[in-house]
Amino acid sequence: MSPTEDEITGWFRQQSRLSPVRYPIGIGDDMAQIALDHGASVLITTDMLLDGTHFDLKTATLKQVGYKCMAASLSDCAAMATIPLAAVAAVALPPSFGEKQLKELHAGITLAADKYNCPLVGGDITSWKQGGPFAVCVAMLSKPGDKPPVRRNGAKVGDVICVTGSLGGSGRHRHLEFEPRVAEALKIVGLADLHAMMDISDGLSSDLNRICNQSGVGALVDASALPVSDDAKMQGDPLDAALNEGEDFELLFTLAPDQWERLHRAWDDPLPITPVGRITDSGHMQIRMRDGRVADLKPGGYEHLAS
Amino acid sequence: MSPTEDEITGWFRQQSRLSPVRYPIGIGDDMAQIALDHGASVLITTDMLLDGTHFDLKTATLKQVGYKCMAASLSDCAAMATIPLAAVAAVALPPSFGEKQLKELHAGITLAADKYNCPLVGGDITSWKQGGPFAVCVAMLSKPGDKPPVRRNGAKVGDVICVTGSLGGSGRHRHLEFEPRVAEALKIVGLADLHAMMDISDGLSSDLNRICNQSGVGALVDASALPVSDDAKMQGDPLDAALNEGEDFELLFTLAPDQWERLHRAWDDPLPITPVGRITDSGHMQIRMRDGRVADLKPGGYEHLAS
Repeated sequence: MSPTEDEITGWFRQQSRLSPVRYPIGIGDDMAQIALDHGASVLITTDMLLDGTHFDLKTATLKQVGYKCMAASLSDCAAMATIPLAAVAAVALPPSFGEKQLKELHAGITLAADKYNCPLVGGDITSWKQGGPFAVCVAMLSKPGDKPPVRRNGAKVGDVICVTGSLGGSGRHRHLEFEPRVAEALKIVGLADLHAMMDISDGLSSDLNRICNQSGVGALVDASALPVSDDAKMQGDPLDAALNEGEDFELLFTLAPDQWERLHRAWDDPLPITPVGRITDSGHMQIRMRDGRVADLKPGGYEHLAS
Repeated sequence: MSPTEDEITGWFRQQSRLSPVRYPIGIGDDMAQIALDHGASVLITTDMLLDGTHFDLKTATLKQVGYKCMAASLSDCAAMATIPLAAVAAVALPPSFGEKQLKELHAGITLAADKYNCPLVGGDITSWKQGGPFAVCVAMLSKPGDKPPVRRNGAKVGDVICVTGSLGGSGRHRHLEFEPRVAEALKIVGLADLHAMMDISDGLSSDLNRICNQSGVGALVDASALPVSDDAKMQGDPLDAALNEGEDFELLFTLAPDQWERLHRAWDDPLPITPVGRITDSGHMQIRMRDGRVADLKPGGYEHLAS
């Protein structure tokens, strides 16, 4: 059996042997952290978006794609509760692409850059000599806020598992116009101490599995508590959509019950935060169905490597 | 006529309206600079490398490609005389790619990372759902050395134009195994005050043209002075190769004549530095041929946008 993307990433992490002083956070989180002089540090993330995989230029505009490629990286900044600083974008152009297409893409990038105060500061324009589909790759820098970046590996048994917004059905249109939870993440960590956080990019089941694996814990998700999106409700199996579909770009985090109480009382933002389960010592993920039955929950979200 | 890559980049630069305090160097140099707290700053660059354009997997190994994608960004760090800090790499995989191919790529990335003390700290693995060629995109961070980063826009009339190494014929094999001039660039700025610098990625004529345009000056190149590589000498027109072929990844810089004297006297490195001409007030590029004739020199290097 071929290794999964997580297994490959784990292998890369093992190989990396990074100095924890120079690189406090390395491979395996939403962003890596690089220490600089005078106690400063920056974080960096990169996201490659491909025509036919992450968007479809037959139906999506290049402005939407420009927005999305920025928003995906902004969501990584949110995932660790850090402050976006700047972005660079590299593109691979099909032969049919020229000035017009680049300016449309740029309009979408600028829309996100202005809204989230994270300007485009550089990039690279390349073309497929022998033809090839359109691809855009953004790298983004952020800096820590008042609290240290929140990682994936700190979840503790007994923690409440929370998600923002609603889940599933993003593929209908939300995946092109979602709002990365940058301000909300900073507000959340200002109100409560989180143990672990990431954004939901590959689906709740896959991403919660990453928190569980990296934290060495299990989880029990309450199916009836899941905030299923209206888009997911229009699909054949809304629960499956909420659990397994990718590109929700909502926040997934865990915190001690008393911290959840504190956050819940203080939270006055229009974005809903929903407790969807508990971190357990079972070592694997489970789900309590509406009928009370408890079943194993497998990571069923988007897998980037064919198996 | 379609705009050139430089015209598009110039348009992006005009649009960007970056705060010079937060972003001392924006679009149009080899790297952008982002100011942080306590006087610290980082620089960032990104390079997208495509199968069939920047390498050919029919003849190049993935280890070579991994090395090259890191070395291209390291050359950007060298181009501004900055110190590499960390890299992230995003890949777009054809359906046939799996663990084996990723590990080969990783071996090449690690080769460069170890040699230049610039570890891989993160990345993104994506696959073409409907098939597509292999692409890899690296973003790299660096920090200033003891001197400020050297930009493209500071060339002054009367400056000596210098290049490191030898030029042309890189396509034979050197483009896969070149050595980015990171240490040499830092050594050069330690010995002399430079006015402008970049690395030669699209060919001397194209890249010198960028320095001239951004500095508002002209240049007179001495054809007989050009350090033509042995590879270029094996081609039909070695002078054309040295002027116009891309991917030399050597340093191109300008400095006042007295600074050149100082550098020339002090330089004890095995890497040759050759003065190849002067910055002029003509407003455009010229070349003095071996027979003494002076002709206009047009940017003839690699153009990423089809015209």
